[in-house]
Amino acid sequence: MPSLDDVLAKASKNSDAALTRLFELLKIPSISTDPAFQSQCKQAADWLVADLQSMGIEASRRDTPGHPMVVGHSDPVPGKPRLLFYGHYDVQPVDPLDLWHNDPFAPALEKVGNTQVIRARGAADDKGQLMTFVEACRAWHAVHGSLPCEICFLFEGEEESGSPSLIPFLTANAEELKSDLALVCDTGMWDQNTPAISTMLRGMVGEEVIITGPNKDLHSGMYGGPAQNPIRVLSKILASLHDDQGRVTLAGFYDEVPPLPDTIAVQWQQLGFDEKEFLGAVGLSEPAGEKDHSALEQIWSRPTCEFCGITGGYTGEGFKTVLPSQASCKISFRLVGQQDPDKIIASLHKHIEDNLPSDCTVEYKNHGGSPATVMPIDDPAFGKAHKALSEEWQADAVYAGCGGSIPVVGDFREYLGMDSLLIGFGLDDDQIHSPNEKYDLRSFQKGINSWIRVLDSLTTEA
Amino acid sequence: MPSLDDVLAKASKNSDAALTRLFELLKIPSISTDPAFQSQCKQAADWLVADLQSMGIEASRRDTPGHPMVVGHSDPVPGKPRLLFYGHYDVQPVDPLDLWHNDPFAPALEKVGNTQVIRARGAADDKGQLMTFVEACRAWHAVHGSLPCEICFLFEGEEESGSPSLIPFLTANAEELKSDLALVCDTGMWDQNTPAISTMLRGMVGEEVIITGPNKDLHSGMYGGPAQNPIRVLSKILASLHDDQGRVTLAGFYDEVPPLPDTIAVQWQQLGFDEKEFLGAVGLSEPAGEKDHSALEQIWSRPTCEFCGITGGYTGEGFKTVLPSQASCKISFRLVGQQDPDKIIASLHKHIEDNLPSDCTVEYKNHGGSPATVMPIDDPAFGKAHKALSEEWQADAVYAGCGGSIPVVGDFREYLGMDSLLIGFGLDDDQIHSPNEKYDLRSFQKGINSWIRVLDSLTTEA
Repeated sequence: MPSLDDVLAKASKNSDAALTRLFELLKIPSISTDPAFQSQCKQAADWLVADLQSMGIEASRRDTPGHPMVVGHSDPVPGKPRLLFYGHYDVQPVDPLDLWHNDPFAPALEKVGNTQVIRARGAADDKGQLMTFVEACRAWHAVHGSLPCEICFLFEGEEESGSPSLIPFLTANAEELKSDLALVCDTGMWDQNTPAISTMLRGMVGEEVIITGPNKDLHSGMYGGPAQNPIRVLSKILASLHDDQGRVTLAGFYDEVPPLPDTIAVQWQQLGFDEKEFLGAVGLSEPAGEKDHSALEQIWSRPTCEFCGITGGYTGEGFKTVLPSQASCKISFRLVGQQDPDKIIASLHKHIEDNLPSDCTVEYKNHGGSPATVMPIDDPAFGKAHKALSEEWQADAVYAGCGGSIPVVGDFREYLGMDSLLIGFGLDDDQIHSPNEKYDLRSFQKGINSWIRVLDSLTTEA
Repeated sequence: MPSLDDVLAKASKNSDAALTRLFELLKIPSISTDPAFQSQCKQAADWLVADLQSMGIEASRRDTPGHPMVVGHSDPVPGKPRLLFYGHYDVQPVDPLDLWHNDPFAPALEKVGNTQVIRARGAADDKGQLMTFVEACRAWHAVHGSLPCEICFLFEGEEESGSPSLIPFLTANAEELKSDLALVCDTGMWDQNTPAISTMLRGMVGEEVIITGPNKDLHSGMYGGPAQNPIRVLSKILASLHDDQGRVTLAGFYDEVPPLPDTIAVQWQQLGFDEKEFLGAVGLSEPAGEKDHSALEQIWSRPTCEFCGITGGYTGEGFKTVLPSQASCKISFRLVGQQDPDKIIASLHKHIEDNLPSDCTVEYKNHGGSPATVMPIDDPAFGKAHKALSEEWQADAVYAGCGGSIPVVGDFREYLGMDSLLIGFGLDDDQIHSPNEKYDLRSFQKGINSWIRVLDSLTTEA
């Protein structure tokens, strides 16, 4: 009977081939939010189907009204848990393209100081992470001829564009997908030497607000003064959404936000989070959120209202003396505790309509939402995974919060009744969603080892 | 000796040919603010040179570091005044293009109700207006074999993009250009039956404000809360530029704004300006400017601060959960009285910097400015032109204000020491700077007659 070390040795031997495979996947520009890249999303899905099939997994592309899902099943193993592994093959847009040092879809290994990094859009979010688990399974399969338990693979192609097809797919295929536990690889390490299991995730809801004033663009000489300017109206509304303490002013916004338990607050203080360094890395020095919370609390346990994009009037080269007819803003809220996305949006609508001059109208475009999630860390699976991770990295794994939302985790709980073990190997400087995204080669390689150890621990009696 | 009526009859006979010539000029997309249209601006200048030459005027294209000027000279006439006529051949951009019913550069005559209109970008602003004077001269020249006085023609190609070459050109060619009086055709009628001479013009200054927060775009999950969001910072600043009475809050903004003399206020009240109708035409109902001034006062005699364009973050299709690094706004101020563009911009800078969080930086791009102008209506030339206009239109001409800025008028006074007679035939519904710009055929034809009468009156003893 081969040992855990045999599987780890196999993964190490496969290392170059694993990187080649990841590069193939990274070359496919599967940008889900932009309809121009529809066929590339399908291409990424097909690549994954073929890759799963190459290790004996029964896999298929499952078309949806949006981008396809990929589903794979390994053989059942009596007496062992059934696990579902989730990742997403779609990526963020790449603009502003001129800030990239390289073609975002020409992956390359680069040396940055003493670190080797994989540079490409999707390297960290989420293709590189997804492939750590696939490669762990490949090594296990190569050594044992089978996987240690039944695994259902689920790869989504709409994670970066609001996952419109996810819930219909989960509910339509609930029996096929429902497992004892979900494994999700879309989160980060605590720092480059300390692994983490994310157990508190913020939710999110996105809404586009479009304000219309005059029924056409006007000349600012002829109408400047008496005509309502929608940029002015929108600015006043946006400016009214935070008070001078950094708190969101929407009615009821904090009603379902729990205070952070003292014990967790103490643990987090002991993590030695350096907010000067965290902010300094992006050219900032002071936390801009709620003044009575630390930066780490602001990210892990406090809700936000953020403006992701604004546009109105003439934005090209030069100057145009126009009073625009419309102005719009894409607003996102990060949610915690029991905050309900629908209630937050309703409160936003009321706030806007209460502050809208009678000569303006407002339209909304909803971009999806999901509540926050808190995981049961007293479940034995969490302890086993914690031990396995700590062994691979030779450092105590952290039970962490996560500022980003991973809506699928809430959906798994709501529609399939299963919890998720969130393990990932991203780092704060991976520049996900920004130009020059990267994934450390070490994250990729030790990520594969980590999953081998986690699979071993979850399928072995304690 | 031919009479005034002979010249008017000649213009009437030339009417179709005049329209054909105007259409040729309107077909040239001379958008000056967009560098992509540089050669088309040159083409429009060359067309005008050839047209002036065709009526025996010594004309040439005069290149500048920007778009060229066109200058023409007719023969001196002893004992008669020397006049300068100014117009501009450049036009505004045409976006949003999808709101045009026709190609903006395929001019067409359209019947709208009982009115014939010339539909094209530049039809009213300013190609159609400019050609009213050229056609008046052509008819005069055809009948008399010469013009009634020496006329210097000056056509600019950068009026819609801040006129960067104008002042250097005026100062370098002051002797050649300096005349007894400037005639400028870039304004409107009081209404479709009542001509106007504009004697109070607002000035303008344009400034682009670019706020930078983080040194790159960030993920709103990972940084949302502690990271400074430049859209939020910009919105707060823009929202602070007007108080709840519609007044601009910049320090010293109203220091050099004179109160409207009671006599003029009374005259304007008697004009019967229907603000409900004026605003209703563009889908609005209430004046949005200073609450203690009528809509007409807001346009003609009060300064403004307007937002002409705003952009920041992700503005494409779908949603991107990004915290942007930058956000920017193009701000314009309409100026009155003795307001100094430089002082206003200095006050804006101070206001922004006083309100800028320490983690943000600001950059500015200036887009030019000019102070307001008030004309001496007791000069006899104004009385003569007033009488000539009133005769052509069979209605008393109005001494009007003008909300739009015509910086050249201030420049003529400052650099060439001459006043300007501002006569134009535009109407409020011409949609200049908007999609579907038009110029009434009646404005074009009676505009030509008006200039013939004005030329006659200015060159005849009272």
